[in-house]
Amino acid sequence: MFNRRKPEKLALTANSPVSKPRSTEAPSSPLAAELTRLLGPQKVLSAYGERLNYRYDAILVGKTPLCVVLPETTADVVAAVRAARAADVPIVGRGAASGLSGGAAPLEESLVISFTRMTKLTIYPEQREARAQAGVITLAVSEQARPHGLVYPPDPASFRTSTIGGNLGENAGGPMCFKYGVSGDYVKALEFVDVDGGIHELRRDAFDLAGLLIGSEGTLGLITEATLRLTPPPRFTRTLMSHFAEVGQAAEAVSQAIAAGAVPAKLEFMDKACTNAVEDYLQIGLPREAEAVLLVDTDGDDLATVEEELALVEAACQDHGGTVRRAADDAESAALWRARRSISPALGRIRPQRMNEDIVVPRSVLAEVVREIRSLGEASGFHLVQFGHIGDGNLHPNILFDPRTESSEKVHELAYQVAQVAIRHGGVLSGEHGIGAMKRDFMRDAVDAVTLEALWDVKRALDPEGMLNPGKILP
Amino acid sequence: MFNRRKPEKLALTANSPVSKPRSTEAPSSPLAAELTRLLGPQKVLSAYGERLNYRYDAILVGKTPLCVVLPETTADVVAAVRAARAADVPIVGRGAASGLSGGAAPLEESLVISFTRMTKLTIYPEQREARAQAGVITLAVSEQARPHGLVYPPDPASFRTSTIGGNLGENAGGPMCFKYGVSGDYVKALEFVDVDGGIHELRRDAFDLAGLLIGSEGTLGLITEATLRLTPPPRFTRTLMSHFAEVGQAAEAVSQAIAAGAVPAKLEFMDKACTNAVEDYLQIGLPREAEAVLLVDTDGDDLATVEEELALVEAACQDHGGTVRRAADDAESAALWRARRSISPALGRIRPQRMNEDIVVPRSVLAEVVREIRSLGEASGFHLVQFGHIGDGNLHPNILFDPRTESSEKVHELAYQVAQVAIRHGGVLSGEHGIGAMKRDFMRDAVDAVTLEALWDVKRALDPEGMLNPGKILP
Repeated sequence: MFNRRKPEKLALTANSPVSKPRSTEAPSSPLAAELTRLLGPQKVLSAYGERLNYRYDAILVGKTPLCVVLPETTADVVAAVRAARAADVPIVGRGAASGLSGGAAPLEESLVISFTRMTKLTIYPEQREARAQAGVITLAVSEQARPHGLVYPPDPASFRTSTIGGNLGENAGGPMCFKYGVSGDYVKALEFVDVDGGIHELRRDAFDLAGLLIGSEGTLGLITEATLRLTPPPRFTRTLMSHFAEVGQAAEAVSQAIAAGAVPAKLEFMDKACTNAVEDYLQIGLPREAEAVLLVDTDGDDLATVEEELALVEAACQDHGGTVRRAADDAESAALWRARRSISPALGRIRPQRMNEDIVVPRSVLAEVVREIRSLGEASGFHLVQFGHIGDGNLHPNILFDPRTESSEKVHELAYQVAQVAIRHGGVLSGEHGIGAMKRDFMRDAVDAVTLEALWDVKRALDPEGMLNPGKILP
Repeated sequence: MFNRRKPEKLALTANSPVSKPRSTEAPSSPLAAELTRLLGPQKVLSAYGERLNYRYDAILVGKTPLCVVLPETTADVVAAVRAARAADVPIVGRGAASGLSGGAAPLEESLVISFTRMTKLTIYPEQREARAQAGVITLAVSEQARPHGLVYPPDPASFRTSTIGGNLGENAGGPMCFKYGVSGDYVKALEFVDVDGGIHELRRDAFDLAGLLIGSEGTLGLITEATLRLTPPPRFTRTLMSHFAEVGQAAEAVSQAIAAGAVPAKLEFMDKACTNAVEDYLQIGLPREAEAVLLVDTDGDDLATVEEELALVEAACQDHGGTVRRAADDAESAALWRARRSISPALGRIRPQRMNEDIVVPRSVLAEVVREIRSLGEASGFHLVQFGHIGDGNLHPNILFDPRTESSEKVHELAYQVAQVAIRHGGVLSGEHGIGAMKRDFMRDAVDAVTLEALWDVKRALDPEGMLNPGKILP
């Protein structure tokens, strides 16, 4: 029988584990012994202190895995999956674990398959393709492709550390995704290992099983390799920053610019609390009184078109009362983007932890959504900031907290209220971070019961005993 | 129990049915009576003569349906699905039936749900989206969007008659798909009705069930509506034609141009037999001795870049011995493209019927594949021509035949040999036409047994009794 496993209570305490290891001794497990026999000791981590590192991602502490395996080839993955199945141990795939929804954090005593040693990468310039093993660092693809005049556009914030396998598991986005699409849009083929250790080589064909694997967070199979589409980078980029007295003005300016024909490469929003957090950190003269700051890039191969698009954005901002600062050169552009890039460290100074949500709402209701979420934050007493990729309506409300003094249950409650605001306004729970463990319970509100049942049917078809990343995505 | 229904022998005889109707009387069926009661007589076709029209698509004659329903709303679709299930009758969805793989042809006595009356279309210029019911004609989307400065890029050859529902069911491509992507790349959300009559509203989210429905040819559910992404059309287009003494030269020229940084909007190939067929028809001075003709468009918003890309293609063609003719203006460009657009009527003059394959192979083996397929055609005695979207390696070998005098079994045999050439060279069976009934048996060669089993698992999960378009895609 299929077992819809109930996860235990989650702790929102990434990076600074609250519970100390009880022992640094390596308790031997039969699975670790078998994997060591099959793959050699250098590919298996069984000491408690080592395994501890594999229980969390960037947002969530899960359960310490029973064993960690570090495969170098797809054959290693197959051997690991078969051994885990023989031992009746659940399997959790893991890249760099920079994810923000708990997708890679084990919720049960599991075998963690860490793909960080599967880093083979080949560029095929003529085909405009890269073939990457799951553990290849996202940034490495563009670094290797650039000498051939090509790049891999998806740019999740963590692209310097995140892996291709992790990006595909979560179907990660990034600032560029409004114009260039998300990770899955760049996958031409992929290889995955199923729950029985079968290897599947899939192209994006009729019956797009590859597409189903992408974004399924390792709950349907383990992506081991992918063929990625590469594109030439744009020759020119132009930048402006604009600030507004009202969030609604910024949202309307964005809508006007897009309707007028601008397709900004990046279109980022920061609310007042976020802008002030960054200004406290950088002291670069950001407008502390502004309710909304927009950061906009246009790009392309024709400078006149790129500047024309920026002019459309500038006019739209000014028409809605925005104050505009246009970067005169690349140095000024980099300075403006430094504000956006500094959000994470700036927030880290306020509270040690944050719960980073990832809602997507229609731009037409954005102002109302931002206001409602701000009110919820104020009522809760938590420090809450909002920023995101406004072009897509992708908003990241961040709840800042100190796990030593503040209740993670209350954080979770507030996060749930925030998710409900999004759903009530016709939005969805996740733009680019995945559902993972964090938003799993919210799925009942986001997806009809009949559709949830269809998703479970598909899950059961590919993982009948629920052994792949149990407790993720589906409630 | 799940029943892997065995289809009967197929007749390759679209548009000119070989078996005459035995009667024009309407045999009443309990299902027709029930649907008439539920939906009214104007939405139900039960007369034999009427039903006959719904047994074929553009390539295949299937079985005359038991009943045809013409829903106007999703609620009508739900009622029809529930009535069919109650009567234990399989369900086949159908758009304009311009498909080339038999996807819409019923293989059993079925209820055909024809979506041609579901034509509601709304453009949201600010969101750059269109919401289309399944029966909306593909061309209508761009026609309605153009006043807002937007278009819907996917351009299957049949776009003047085909429907959005049919395009998504087959994940249709077209000449533009090398640069702009296939139909599924433009879907932001969709609604489908499942085999039990449940309505699902899906966005392209984690666990991308929408992506799985796209290209599944109505075997997993019936797509009733979709939200489509629109884009501004490019401002400029430039065209050239080049011809070569060897197919290999053309393939290498294409590879060089792409490696040098050109991303042609269209990149079409015609072999000697195809060129001669078109020249016989149009008499416009096409090079009858050439083994390969290329037709290339570059496009974009910056004229200098568009012309620079065309110059890269021109240089690559000349470097490989090609004779180049560059269109001086839009009129000459239209004249050159007339050759490509006339392939269908030109082939129709040679034989009344054709089996149109849709293989995709790496460009590096294209010359060899074209040669091998030509030899197979010569050995078989059939008239065989080859053309296609060479940028993607998508090749359409067409077997021309007369069903009155030539054996459809032999056509099928040759088609199978052609498919095997593609698979042997690392290719796939379908670039843009789907698998349908025509290529279903070839799937055993194209897909590993372990992956085929996974596809069956997913099929069973969503359609446990095999009631949705039985006999399609999965062997």
